[in-house]
Amino acid sequence: MSQILYGKPVTENLDFKSKTIFENYITKNDKPPILTAITVGENPASLLYVSVKEKKAKQLGVDFNWIKLKESTSESELEDTISNYSESSQGMIVQLPLPEHLNVEKVIDLIPSEIDVDGLTTFNLGRLYSENLNIIPATSMAILELLSHYELETEDKNIVIAGRSRLVTSPLSKILSSKKFNGNVSVIHSKTSNPKDFISKADIFISAVGKSKMFDKSYFKEGSYVIDVGISVVDGKSYGDIDTTDLDNYLLGRAPYPGGIGPITVSALYSNLAQLIS
Amino acid sequence: MSQILYGKPVTENLDFKSKTIFENYITKNDKPPILTAITVGENPASLLYVSVKEKKAKQLGVDFNWIKLKESTSESELEDTISNYSESSQGMIVQLPLPEHLNVEKVIDLIPSEIDVDGLTTFNLGRLYSENLNIIPATSMAILELLSHYELETEDKNIVIAGRSRLVTSPLSKILSSKKFNGNVSVIHSKTSNPKDFISKADIFISAVGKSKMFDKSYFKEGSYVIDVGISVVDGKSYGDIDTTDLDNYLLGRAPYPGGIGPITVSALYSNLAQLIS
Repeated sequence: MSQILYGKPVTENLDFKSKTIFENYITKNDKPPILTAITVGENPASLLYVSVKEKKAKQLGVDFNWIKLKESTSESELEDTISNYSESSQGMIVQLPLPEHLNVEKVIDLIPSEIDVDGLTTFNLGRLYSENLNIIPATSMAILELLSHYELETEDKNIVIAGRSRLVTSPLSKILSSKKFNGNVSVIHSKTSNPKDFISKADIFISAVGKSKMFDKSYFKEGSYVIDVGISVVDGKSYGDIDTTDLDNYLLGRAPYPGGIGPITVSALYSNLAQLIS
Repeated sequence: MSQILYGKPVTENLDFKSKTIFENYITKNDKPPILTAITVGENPASLLYVSVKEKKAKQLGVDFNWIKLKESTSESELEDTISNYSESSQGMIVQLPLPEHLNVEKVIDLIPSEIDVDGLTTFNLGRLYSENLNIIPATSMAILELLSHYELETEDKNIVIAGRSRLVTSPLSKILSSKKFNGNVSVIHSKTSNPKDFISKADIFISAVGKSKMFDKSYFKEGSYVIDVGISVVDGKSYGDIDTTDLDNYLLGRAPYPGGIGPITVSALYSNLAQLIS
C-alpha cells in the first residue's frame, strides 16, 4: 500500500508551534497579534478561503481583522487602506485574485515586507535567492513542510514540478534546488510536449497545473512520490491534478486532493506570522 | 562543423544600442551618465575585471567613477561611500567578491535598486518573478543575449544548467522556464550523482560550474548546443568547464571559453545602465 501523505498531522505540528509563539506574544504585549486580511469584491472562492483563514486565526489566538472592500475599489483607495492598517497589524494579506482593474504586483508591493505573511512582495521573493530563507510563500512552504514531516529525502532526487506560476511553483523550484534541499529539479509546463519524459523519471512529482485528473499512473515511476497541488472546478465539483486509479500498490506515497497540501497552506500563513513576530 | 558561438558580434550589437542611448543622454543632459564602481581591497581578479569595465565605459561614452577602498573598510564606511555617490550616479556596482568581513547581500542591498546595473539587489532579484523582466543580472543576461543573437530556439527544448549560484544560474533557470522562453529547464549541481542522465538529454547545456574540462563529448547529446560559462584557474592558466576535444562534428554549436559569454557580460552591464536611464 502506498502511504497517503495527509496534510492534517503537518498542520497540527505547525499550528502547535505557531500557537506557542502567539501565546508568548500575548503574555508580553497584553494583546494578540493582528492579521489584517483585505478582500476586494465578492469572488466566492476568495471569500471562502479568507473565512477558512479567519477560523484558523480563532483557533490560534490571532486577532483577525477582515477588511471587505467593494469590487470597484481603486488602486489609491486600496493603497490608503493598506497604509491605514499597516502600523497596527503584525501581518497583512491581500487576498488574490483581485479584480481585473487592479495590478496585482503593484498592490502586493504596497504591503510592508515585514508584515507580508504571504511572502509575495517583490522584496520577499528576492530574498528567496539568499541562502538564508526567511518568509516562504505559503503554498511552497506547505509543500516543503509536507516533504519534511514525512521525511521524504530530496538530496540528489529527481524532482519534477509541473506548473510555473509566480506564486506557487516558481519559488519552490528555486528552494528545492538550493543547498538546503539539493534536489535535481526540472520544471515543465503547458509548452512541454512530452511531460511523460520528465515525470516518468521523477522520484518526487509535484503537480500544480489545475487540470482535473491530468496525470494518471501511466505517467509515474513505480515507487515514486506524487504531490497533488492543483485545484480545478468542473461542474461545481473540485478536483486535483491526479487521477488516483490503481496508484495504491504502485507509488510509495502521495499527497491527496483534498486533504493534502491545501490545509497546510493556511497553517503556513500563520507559521510565517509567528516567524515575523518572534 | 559545429558553429562557434562567439561573444563578439553579440557585444557589438548590444554596445551599439547602448551607445545610442548614452549619446541621447549626453545631448539631453550635457554630460555623460556616470557609473560608479566600488572595489574593496586588492583582489587581482576583481581589479582586472573592473578595469575591463572601465575600458568599455570609455568606448561607450560613460563616465566611469572608480572608487578604490582599502581591504579593511568597515560596513558602515562602505555604506557611507555608497550613499555619497548614489545621487550623482546613474549606475553603481560593488565588485564581488568582497573581503570576508563584509556581508555581500547586505552591502549589495545598500545600492538603490534604480541604479543597480548588476541587478543583484534583493528587490531587483524579486522582480525576476514578475512577467515583466526589467534588470537581469549581467551573466544571465549575457547567456540570454547569446541565445537570442544566434537564434537558438528555447521553447520546449530541454535546457540543463549545471550550477546554481545565486548570481549566475539561479536567475537564469527562472527566466528560461518563464513564458517568454518556455524552456524545459533542469538544474543540476555538485550533489547530482549522475549529471550525465540530464546532460545527455539536453538540447542546450549551460555549464557554470568552474571546474576545468569537467564535461567532455561523452556527456553531450549529438546535435545539441553547449554554452561554457564556468571559469577556473589552474597553475595560473584559466579554463572553461568544457573539454572541447572532438566536439566539432558532433555538436550543432557551442559558446567557447574564452571569447564566448565573458565579453558579453560586460556589455550586458552597460545595456542595463542604458535601460535604467532611458
